[in-house]
This record gives sequence, structure tokens and C-alpha cells, in this order.
Amino acid sequence: MSSREQAFIMALRQIAGDPAARNLSDDAAILARPTGDLVLSHDMIVENVHYLSNDPPETVAQKLVGVNLSDLAAKGAKPLGALMGYSLGIDYKWDQAFVKGLASACHQYNLPLLGGDTVALPRHTAHFSGMTVIGLAPSCGAPDRRGAKAEDDLWVTGPIGDAGFGLRILNRRKPIDNPLTEILIQAYRCPVPRLEEGAWLAPYVHAMADISDGLLIDAKRIAEASNLGVKVNLDKMPLSKEAIAYFGDSPTTRLQAATAGDDYQLILSAPSSCRHKLQHLADEKNFGLFRVGKFSQEKGLSLYNQHGLITPPSNLGYEHGCNC
Amino acid sequence: MSSREQAFIMALRQIAGDPAARNLSDDAAILARPTGDLVLSHDMIVENVHYLSNDPPETVAQKLVGVNLSDLAAKGAKPLGALMGYSLGIDYKWDQAFVKGLASACHQYNLPLLGGDTVALPRHTAHFSGMTVIGLAPSCGAPDRRGAKAEDDLWVTGPIGDAGFGLRILNRRKPIDNPLTEILIQAYRCPVPRLEEGAWLAPYVHAMADISDGLLIDAKRIAEASNLGVKVNLDKMPLSKEAIAYFGDSPTTRLQAATAGDDYQLILSAPSSCRHKLQHLADEKNFGLFRVGKFSQEKGLSLYNQHGLITPPSNLGYEHGCNC
Repeated sequence: MSSREQAFIMALRQIAGDPAARNLSDDAAILARPTGDLVLSHDMIVENVHYLSNDPPETVAQKLVGVNLSDLAAKGAKPLGALMGYSLGIDYKWDQAFVKGLASACHQYNLPLLGGDTVALPRHTAHFSGMTVIGLAPSCGAPDRRGAKAEDDLWVTGPIGDAGFGLRILNRRKPIDNPLTEILIQAYRCPVPRLEEGAWLAPYVHAMADISDGLLIDAKRIAEASNLGVKVNLDKMPLSKEAIAYFGDSPTTRLQAATAGDDYQLILSAPSSCRHKLQHLADEKNFGLFRVGKFSQEKGLSLYNQHGLITPPSNLGYEHGCNC
Repeated sequence: MSSREQAFIMALRQIAGDPAARNLSDDAAILARPTGDLVLSHDMIVENVHYLSNDPPETVAQKLVGVNLSDLAAKGAKPLGALMGYSLGIDYKWDQAFVKGLASACHQYNLPLLGGDTVALPRHTAHFSGMTVIGLAPSCGAPDRRGAKAEDDLWVTGPIGDAGFGLRILNRRKPIDNPLTEILIQAYRCPVPRLEEGAWLAPYVHAMADISDGLLIDAKRIAEASNLGVKVNLDKMPLSKEAIAYFGDSPTTRLQAATAGDDYQLILSAPSSCRHKLQHLADEKNFGLFRVGKFSQEKGLSLYNQHGLITPPSNLGYEHGCNC
């Protein structure tokens, strides 16, 4: 084993202290019998697909953890542990910085690192990593994407579009000179999984998912999976004050935000009879909750604002492989 | 989503019929509360590292399943499900053939496909895939790599070196013209996880692992993890009749076999008081079990044959990243 690989694994062991990890010295991790149903998800991130080559390695690790835990959040689950698949990066310093970011994210979300695999890649191969997260389903059951009912309200838990705006800023050639941009770039690089919100909301929702590919496409996916249609009011969609300050608040900006992806806010359907209960819950727990539309028997996605119906754009969001 | 990605996911859905998979349409899989402890492992395979570019895609899928299930076998676990991370391959036909091999392997080992992720890669990137397997630990507890005791016997469950010999044949320039070679190539391309053997052996062993990187290195890893040394008798190590017929049976061949890796036989330590019980078990269940050495208080790896001690080679096996 190269000294580089050894150093990497030694560093991982520092953050794999849970007995279930068996010190990363066994063929497998052993997790004590869970007290309920399990929620399992696996997401990968690839250089120049899900993050930029010059993103700091610490934030690449935080993104890996964030996007995976976001799937648990969408099912109201409590994280039990993670296994990571990692391809050794550009250089030793890159790997060490990645582990630093991983340690920070695992600590922040109380996520035990249980095991995984590391590979050295042939040259000229894009760097990638994958993570499997295991969570404990809420006692009410894990909400399904397929559970929305006609006349349900459509809600989201926070500002839409920040990550997409952050990516736009990073893709510009001119230097970043506005302090607001840091917040938008952070939204792109370090998505926050809405774990507490997911757990609080799970008992009340008919369907819940996370917005990974864009508000419009993810709303449409819930509708289609539930054999329904959905109406979205773009004016009700929350934008952050940073996005408004930097990009303004126009119908065009709102459409860009609604189709940008990488938000990792939760998107949910709940009966209108729960409307006040949900608003009270959000006030009590101090989290964002914004009613942005409605599900309907009439199929398809309808988009409107104060001026009336809008023709949905041909590209509703980021479309990639199996987002399961 | 490209038609190619859609077709791939549609094909995956055909083999993800377990309700826990939620038709690969949700953010996560939901596994009903397990009846015991869980065994979790994640292994990746990368083109030109773990398999050859011109290996048939069906066998690449079978290898992905085989190497992952082998980790469950080493813990005596029963497979409950798998999540797959997949990078779309060379072309549509390659992906479809991969799914065919995956379906075959999942069916063979009664392994439900529960979820995962698919990514399209930038050009010139090596193809890779990863899998997380979840298994139910045996009621006696999952054997640890760290549990060997001094004076324990060292056992393996079958022929050593076949996969390494198969790879040597594939790496030769001249065409394959010997019918024996097919069996050795098959051992390299489609490793068989010893799930039944692992479950039968688990109650009797002090330590168990699978031989992924070579008999010598994996024996040494058990010894080191258990704070012991190990003596291996190369003459007792089983070679297949195909390997002997093709490569002969010399001390050199035996050393090559013992350091080749990719065997995926089980390697285990058990007290000598269990020797007859284990031999009886192997006879009764009709599986291979070969006593090839002994653990000792004296640290390090000792290698010998009928002529006496042999100096261990500097390279004891395939050394890569985190084999946890």
C-alpha cells in the first residue's frame, strides 16, 4: 500500500470511532439491530459534473455528506451511519483536506463513518466519490414520493435557486468582488440537509422529497409518481435576500431559480387541513416553510404568477441518471 | 434525461421488484426492521484496475456483486439487499449487457436491488461502479478479523490462485487455445461469494475474512489485527486441477498462487479442538475446507513447505486502498 493510501486510511480511522466501524479493519461494518425500519440511499458526486475541479476539497466532502443526508431528511430519517467509496484525488494534500471536510461534516450531523472502499484511479480519470447513508425511519413511516393527493398544498422549506446562482457566479470569468456572492457560492458547495425539518414534517405530509434537480422538475416528479398534476405559483417561491440583491427579482430570475437544482430544500405535499398546523410548527421550531402551489387531478405542470399562466420552460431542471 | 439513461433505469426497475426499492422512484429505499444485527459493506470496481476493458460487461456486473457479497460471506451474513452506484459505460449496448449480468447475479444470490445512483461521466474517464450490500448477521454474531487466538488453525475454503492465473492468461498476447483456461478466466471474472460456507462456519470460527488480495497478505492481516503471527504451509494450500494442468505444481507456482489475489475464498481461524467438527461439517455440506497453517504468539508471517522455511516474497499480494 502506498504511503499516501496508508495516510488516507489512518486519517479516516480518526473519524471512524464508532464500534460498528470495527476500526475500518474488517471486511464489513456491523450495526447493532436497529429499533425500526431503515432508510437507505446512495449518491455519487463526480468532478466537473457535481462539483468544479477547483472547488476546495473540504467542500467537496461536505457536499458528498450533504446530498446524501438530504435523502434521509426527505424521509424524516435519523442518520445511523455512512459508508464511503473514494477515489484518491489529485494529490496527497487534496485527500487530506477532503478528510478534514468529511470529519467536519460527520461531526456536524452526528454521522458515524462505518466503512467503505478506496481506489487509486488510472490517470486522466475524473475524481469521484460515493456515499451510502443508513438512517432510522420515523415511527410514523418514511414518507413516499408517490403519496401526494389531489388538492394537497405544495410546500418548500426555504429559498430556491441560491446554489444555481452560486454556480453561475463561479462559472464567470471575472473575479468575485461582491460579499453577497460568498453565501450563494456556499449554497452550491455545501448544501445543508434539512434533517430536523424532515423529522418534524414527516408525520404531517402525504409525500416528501428533496429538491436536488430543481423545484419544477422535483414538483413534477412528485405529481407524476402520485398520478397527479401540480400548479406552482412562481411569485410564492422564496428567494434569498442575497439572490435578490445580486440578481434582482424578475420573472426571469425566478424561472432561473426554479429550474436551477442543487437546492436541497425539502419539497412536500400536505392536506390543506394541515395548513395552520404546519405554519404553527414552522413558527414554533423556527424553520422556513413556504406554500408554493397545489396538486390537482389535472395532469401536468402548470406554472403561473400574478399575471397569469406562464409557459413552462423546456428544461425544468437538471436531468441526469437514476435519482433514486 | 437522455434516452440512454432512461432505458438504463427502466432496465434496472425490472430487477428492483422488492417493495423496499419503492420502484427506484423515491429518494431512498425503505427496509423493514431487520430481525438482527446488520452487516454493511461497500466495494468499488474500476476499469483497468479491478477488471479489464475488454471483459464482457455481464461479467463486470457479476464481479461487482461477487466481491461485495463475499464480504457478507466472510461475516456469515445473509444478504438483504444492495444499492448500486453506476457510471454509464462505453455505450448503450454495454450498459444493457451489464444490467443483464446484474439481473443474473441478483437472481443467483437472491439479492434484492434496492436503489442507488447513476452518473454520466466526463469523456476519457475510466468506467467504475460501486455497491453497498446489507446483510443480516448470524445469530452467533458476525466473526471479526481481529478474533484469532494463538494456536488456532488457519483454514481456507478452496483453491487459491485461479483468478490470478486467469488474469495472467488474459494478459498474454497469444490467443487462448486451451479449454482449461476458460475455468481460470471465469475465476478472475466472476468470483463466487462463499455465502453458504460463511454461514455454516461462522459459529465455529474465531476470525474470518475473504481472500481478496492474496492468501499471504490476508492471512497476515488477520494475524496483525489479532496481535499474532501466522505460519503458512504452502504445500497444504489447495491448487485447482486446472491450475496444475496449465501452470504445473512447483514452489514457484504455489508462491504465485498465494500472492495473486481475487480468490474470494474464505480464510478463517478456528481452535484446533474444532478441527474434526469442521472437517465433518465440510464433508456433510460438501464444501472445500483446507488447513493451511497456524497462528502463533510469535509475530510475523512464516512461510514453509516440505523442505523447510521459505523467505516470504516482498510483495505478499495486491495492496490497494482501504479494504474495509
